[in-house]
Amino acid sequence: MSGTQNKTGRARGEEWWQTGIIEMRPGVIRLRGYEIQDLIGRVSFPAMIWLMLRGELPGEEQAALLGIALGAAVDHGPQAPSIAIARMAITCGVGINSAMASAVNVLGDVHGGAGEQALSFYGDIAAELDAGMPLADAVSARLNRFLAGENGYVPGLGHRFHPVDPRAPRLIELTRDFAARGIVSGRFADIAEAIEAEVARRKGKKIPLNIDGATAVIYGELGFPPPLTRGLFVLSRSVGILAHAWEQSQESDRNKGPLPREWLWAYSGTPVRSLPEGDGGK
Amino acid sequence: MSGTQNKTGRARGEEWWQTGIIEMRPGVIRLRGYEIQDLIGRVSFPAMIWLMLRGELPGEEQAALLGIALGAAVDHGPQAPSIAIARMAITCGVGINSAMASAVNVLGDVHGGAGEQALSFYGDIAAELDAGMPLADAVSARLNRFLAGENGYVPGLGHRFHPVDPRAPRLIELTRDFAARGIVSGRFADIAEAIEAEVARRKGKKIPLNIDGATAVIYGELGFPPPLTRGLFVLSRSVGILAHAWEQSQESDRNKGPLPREWLWAYSGTPVRSLPEGDGGK
Amino acid sequence: MSGTQNKTGRARGEEWWQTGIIEMRPGVIRLRGYEIQDLIGRVSFPAMIWLMLRGELPGEEQAALLGIALGAAVDHGPQAPSIAIARMAITCGVGINSAMASAVNVLGDVHGGAGEQALSFYGDIAAELDAGMPLADAVSARLNRFLAGENGYVPGLGHRFHPVDPRAPRLIELTRDFAARGIVSGRFADIAEAIEAEVARRKGKKIPLNIDGATAVIYGELGFPPPLTRGLFVLSRSVGILAHAWEQSQESDRNKGPLPREWLWAYSGTPVRSLPEGDGGK
Amino acid sequence: MSGTQNKTGRARGEEWWQTGIIEMRPGVIRLRGYEIQDLIGRVSFPAMIWLMLRGELPGEEQAALLGIALGAAVDHGPQAPSIAIARMAITCGVGINSAMASAVNVLGDVHGGAGEQALSFYGDIAAELDAGMPLADAVSARLNRFLAGENGYVPGLGHRFHPVDPRAPRLIELTRDFAARGIVSGRFADIAEAIEAEVARRKGKKIPLNIDGATAVIYGELGFPPPLTRGLFVLSRSVGILAHAWEQSQESDRNKGPLPREWLWAYSGTPVRSLPEGDGGK
Repeated sequence: MSGTQNKTGRARGEEWWQTGIIEMRPGVIRLRGYEIQDLIGRVSFPAMIWLMLRGELPGEEQAALLGIALGAAVDHGPQAPSIAIARMAITCGVGINSAMASAVNVLGDVHGGAGEQALSFYGDIAAELDAGMPLADAVSARLNRFLAGENGYVPGLGHRFHPVDPRAPRLIELTRDFAARGIVSGRFADIAEAIEAEVARRKGKKIPLNIDGATAVIYGELGFPPPLTRGLFVLSRSVGILAHAWEQSQESDRNKGPLPREWLWAYSGTPVRSLPEGDGGK
Repeated sequence: MSGTQNKTGRARGEEWWQTGIIEMRPGVIRLRGYEIQDLIGRVSFPAMIWLMLRGELPGEEQAALLGIALGAAVDHGPQAPSIAIARMAITCGVGINSAMASAVNVLGDVHGGAGEQALSFYGDIAAELDAGMPLADAVSARLNRFLAGENGYVPGLGHRFHPVDPRAPRLIELTRDFAARGIVSGRFADIAEAIEAEVARRKGKKIPLNIDGATAVIYGELGFPPPLTRGLFVLSRSVGILAHAWEQSQESDRNKGPLPREWLWAYSGTPVRSLPEGDGGK
Repeated sequence: MSGTQNKTGRARGEEWWQTGIIEMRPGVIRLRGYEIQDLIGRVSFPAMIWLMLRGELPGEEQAALLGIALGAAVDHGPQAPSIAIARMAITCGVGINSAMASAVNVLGDVHGGAGEQALSFYGDIAAELDAGMPLADAVSARLNRFLAGENGYVPGLGHRFHPVDPRAPRLIELTRDFAARGIVSGRFADIAEAIEAEVARRKGKKIPLNIDGATAVIYGELGFPPPLTRGLFVLSRSVGILAHAWEQSQESDRNKGPLPREWLWAYSGTPVRSLPEGDGGK
Repeated sequence: MSGTQNKTGRARGEEWWQTGIIEMRPGVIRLRGYEIQDLIGRVSFPAMIWLMLRGELPGEEQAALLGIALGAAVDHGPQAPSIAIARMAITCGVGINSAMASAVNVLGDVHGGAGEQALSFYGDIAAELDAGMPLADAVSARLNRFLAGENGYVPGLGHRFHPVDPRAPRLIELTRDFAARGIVSGRFADIAEAIEAEVARRKGKKIPLNIDGATAVIYGELGFPPPLTRGLFVLSRSVGILAHAWEQSQESDRNKGPLPREWLWAYSGTPVRSLPEGDGGK
């Protein structure tokens, strides 16, 4: 933004909104340097996502692997807060876009951040591999550090509901296939499986890879930085959110609460009392 | 926005965002023409709300009545989608502002629009009164039109849960007090009670005024236009939304779904099946 | 929901959240009856979207055409409110999911509803074709009705910025290709072009098809109902929203306003004045 | 939540949503133990906010001071991202509740978190005072720690636009008044002014208290914990957000972008190029 002091008016205003993603003039739309009409029909939807986020087109197989990860996490049912919120929102009389917004909004550090944390964890180990440390040592060192200082679950492992999350082994199997064909290196799959094995050795029981760990493997193989994976999860889960919002919109419910209509909630507060004399706060 | 063709640059940019609400220069903030430091400590919070929305300061008693309506609707418990969503959002790892946003977002036509509809209904009748029609006739005519063409519930009457909503008679009582002191005319209270009586006469049972109908009476007495009352409801309910979000943030729940964690949902779709031969859609 | 009166407790709670989209048990996730691990790697991302929304898998070519429409509308630059909001939100210190939520939320009737309106318009004409009316007559009749009663622009035509939107002719060309191969009927392309021609004849100048009209053609060809197309647009535009949010997150801006930081806005309200005597509203 | 293993069905479902804020039965609504009809008309709107958030009624003067802080921060004009977003959202065809949601959502760590940070900073110093350290020493020690490790601005001081924020000295003056009358202790005002003085001494120029620092003083005097102050700011700023959304809704703009309609943005990305041979990613 050099030279803003020499710019005035419209030029200064237009510079305020500069971007390297899209260029436009009347009759012209270019994404990352490509004419939009050249892209349409030539690149798949996952390839378009990749281009928009990273500035270059992926190979066809890379785009296919991205699409696989995006497709795997679309839904986890109405017990997921995001899905329940989408359905509740629809019954409150807002548009489908607003129902999706209220739902997407809650894909925060806890609901949406697990993949990001897993990929950061893998990335720390990958950096040690780059520095020459053997895989087992790098995994062990990172786990030691984790178990010493960070609380909670090892990122990417375990599921409160599924003994084995059926999505995870399938995603790793496919990653291995893509690695065998030279599309990706397979290095993040190695890291994730080494973590899984080392945790099993230490705990005496296997805590299997979950969907967040498995998609983090793919996003890592494809070179996405960790914070961007939360955005990819938003794109993916938006599909399920839309499907549930749409299904709900076909029903006649109004102001759908979390529990059946005739139920209430448990009150755990101060028992009934009278207002103090004087009028507190009027 | 006259003369934009003669403006250039910064002037054109600044004109794009014109407003009659706030004026600012370095060291100066004015709301509706008043220096902010003159307002602070001199006008109550409800009076500030009134000034911001309507451009002029209310009388002290008008502001008090506005505050009464705002205070009455702050909460209806976790069975209200807005409240449940705020609590769920907090457990997903977003900030308190985002939890409030996801919740406020669902105060749409159904959840948040009932007061607006009630005030429009009252306003139609008030217009007939202005034109000289007697109250009973105006109410009857409007109800005839409603029952002929519009479906659903008469706006402002009835509650799925409360036989009598304890907020409504108290709000009407207070409105009568303010009318007796000449702060408001009492005309909207008359209209609401006439509707209630006529519906009882026609249906053979009383369907009492609800919170939306009662706050609509007050907002109508104070001269707020119907679409703005939804905004007032957002301000009011935001208090309960914040209280529940805050209470939830003191708990350790993660990804709180609508039902107890070990419960699922009923599946009503296509029974389990195999993928078709060929690869549908790859 | 028959027989709720005979259900109690958990069964009643689980029934409250019934869905035909997803079935789950420990270790089992099924979408629309298919095991998730069978879908992963076998169906493309657009095919997964189709399955989730419509309950059945599309043909491979149908999924490809859906992906084309989704890819075409991903971005229209920072002058689009959705994109600008995403970028502003990031600089306010919220997560990428919340930035996306604030942006997606505004894809309402005006910003996001144009495709829905266009497809409804086409659908009215298609219904007349089904009833045996010739295309030109059906188009003319619908336009007459539109011009008589509905104000504003003919849905799907014209663009405030692009003389010809470069996306539209390319999308129609591709639709024709798919029709030539028997994937779709081509009927909605016929309808849209007939509307374009009739409007040109009446106005004496061509008002070309825009992106909303062109994607509506594809969604219509593929059998999506109009209200669902707004959801599809949300999925599509979410890609651009994410790309811009991500790009912005790499910058150091804080609280990015709409105009350059040193600019203000034009104030058009009450000139500076003193507070009235007495304390209005305290 | 003891004994959940012994509960079944409805009891378990109702326990899932327990709260100490609101109790309800048909015809009964109690907030924090008080019958709602007893509260309505007896406590001011700020007192209701206090009761909801903290469980007990404030004194009348405490409620008044809370109302002063809430009223002071309602608006900072359309250059604030929250306000601009509210106005843009309205022009996109969403309800006023959704416009408010998109805006409130961005009151995150940067836009909405400054008061929270200021109050935490003050609280650290207050804890040292409690432990017997003199004020000047406690301030100096905390500033040393801040300047050593934390980057950026000292929380609560300085403004990018206002040399002196006119709201801050007025709020401190009022806090001193309330302290003189024994409503609050004045301790947080002391702390804030000591910080201001010490920073001036070190930097050789005064960096005056800003609105975030001044409202944090009041919230601290009143005993609110830091994270809750962001919620209070949401309540306060929601007023300005609503006022601007409402004002915008009276205009005819559609899809209002950040800059005048005929302006664009600066493109800084890859120059125009052709798609590679082969079909990248289809």
